[in-house]
Amino acid sequence: MMESRTETRVRYAETDAMGVAYHGSYIPWLEMARVQLLDDLGLPYRKMEERGFHLPVVDLRCEYRQSCRFDDRLEVLARITERPRARVTLAYEIHCGERLLARAWTVHAVVDDSGRPVRPPEFFLAALERVGL
Amino acid sequence: MMESRTETRVRYAETDAMGVAYHGSYIPWLEMARVQLLDDLGLPYRKMEERGFHLPVVDLRCEYRQSCRFDDRLEVLARITERPRARVTLAYEIHCGERLLARAWTVHAVVDDSGRPVRPPEFFLAALERVGL
Amino acid sequence: MMESRTETRVRYAETDAMGVAYHGSYIPWLEMARVQLLDDLGLPYRKMEERGFHLPVVDLRCEYRQSCRFDDRLEVLARITERPRARVTLAYEIHCGERLLARAWTVHAVVDDSGRPVRPPEFFLAALERVGL
Amino acid sequence: MMESRTETRVRYAETDAMGVAYHGSYIPWLEMARVQLLDDLGLPYRKMEERGFHLPVVDLRCEYRQSCRFDDRLEVLARITERPRARVTLAYEIHCGERLLARAWTVHAVVDDSGRPVRPPEFFLAALERVGL
Repeated sequence: MMESRTETRVRYAETDAMGVAYHGSYIPWLEMARVQLLDDLGLPYRKMEERGFHLPVVDLRCEYRQSCRFDDRLEVLARITERPRARVTLAYEIHCGERLLARAWTVHAVVDDSGRPVRPPEFFLAALERVGL
Repeated sequence: MMESRTETRVRYAETDAMGVAYHGSYIPWLEMARVQLLDDLGLPYRKMEERGFHLPVVDLRCEYRQSCRFDDRLEVLARITERPRARVTLAYEIHCGERLLARAWTVHAVVDDSGRPVRPPEFFLAALERVGL
Repeated sequence: MMESRTETRVRYAETDAMGVAYHGSYIPWLEMARVQLLDDLGLPYRKMEERGFHLPVVDLRCEYRQSCRFDDRLEVLARITERPRARVTLAYEIHCGERLLARAWTVHAVVDDSGRPVRPPEFFLAALERVGL
Repeated sequence: MMESRTETRVRYAETDAMGVAYHGSYIPWLEMARVQLLDDLGLPYRKMEERGFHLPVVDLRCEYRQSCRFDDRLEVLARITERPRARVTLAYEIHCGERLLARAWTVHAVVDDSGRPVRPPEFFLAALERVGL
């Protein structure tokens, strides 16, 4: 298992009229943690894209357990637990201090610059192998 | 079953560097269709909130099948298929012409102004009954 | 002078914890009106981009006079008053019924696919001429 | 003069189909720097709101000089140069390494919980005095 963590503060822009963070605002937080995980694997997503590989989201699930407010400090964990085959699956947790706010999962296709599905590139699989996946 | 439809055009603000709509941009589109469904039931969400009821999202799933681009005209369908008990479940489809872009589901709690879970209000159940649910 | 109008409803996603639309949410509304103006000129922005021309915003100003809330119906006017030289300037008004919510201005460069500034293309100037500009 | 700085990385969510950060994405970055400035003054904005004061944006200007891309590391400076009277004015700069990407200004009203304009509260003026304003 490979796990990364990133931190963020709830922006006013991310809140809604209920006084809490809008549920759609969580999606970019997941992205931040995913980007960090790729960084920690030595495979910055920007570099992956420059090499012609993209990881579009094909499935997304988010369970919202507790809300958060403007200026709350959040910790977002992203985890990859399985060696990917055609698709890459990540799991996430969003915490605010002791409170678990949300659990989420994303599934990603691997595509080339023209959007065609391809196998996960060797350098990606090799990086996962180095962390035991 | 009760179904509503709404239309939207992909805003440039909703696209990302992959040249397509960002996956997080779909979440407000679901919201638009949900708001329309409540309108069509004669229960505008703004009125529900004024009466002290809110429907925060507690679970969200979205399957992305095909991408869409700036200025694409989308049709978003929202559907309620079951009489809600504690929670309200909706299903969605996002279409672009003949293409099915995404299927999604949201589950909502019913809470009062202080955020406490409450039973769906009578006027909400009555409105659903009028459409056979 | 060439003027276009478009309509939108305030999304819950566009509100913030003050209970009104977030000031940053107005920016995509300006974009919608600008896109409509180009449509009305017979020059859809998507087509302009396909022909290799882009209109990045280089200056933006927005005066906020009154706030608006979730579900408010807005009317957004975009106006072009001068034949563009190197840059294209648009003026906007956002209304909610009788209320003027905001006035705004954007200035756009004209660039090619590689981001280099270019003169406004002939077909663009010709379209403006047809409406007396 | 009082100046604060904050850092952020461009999110994929903040990019658009031109391959760069969407111009509207800059608005929350200004907000982040403004929130930091209030923190540095010892007046977290959340606390101000809890005490019944809000600082809605009434005027916004942003000059875009250079674009930035996904994953770029940005530094955002916020500056207050004048003792506020009825309104509070801030100036901003967004940098990416050596490059100045944008300059911006916001003007804020001071309002109470009911949205009525009020004079800047004493604790706010006192905090500014402590930094020589």
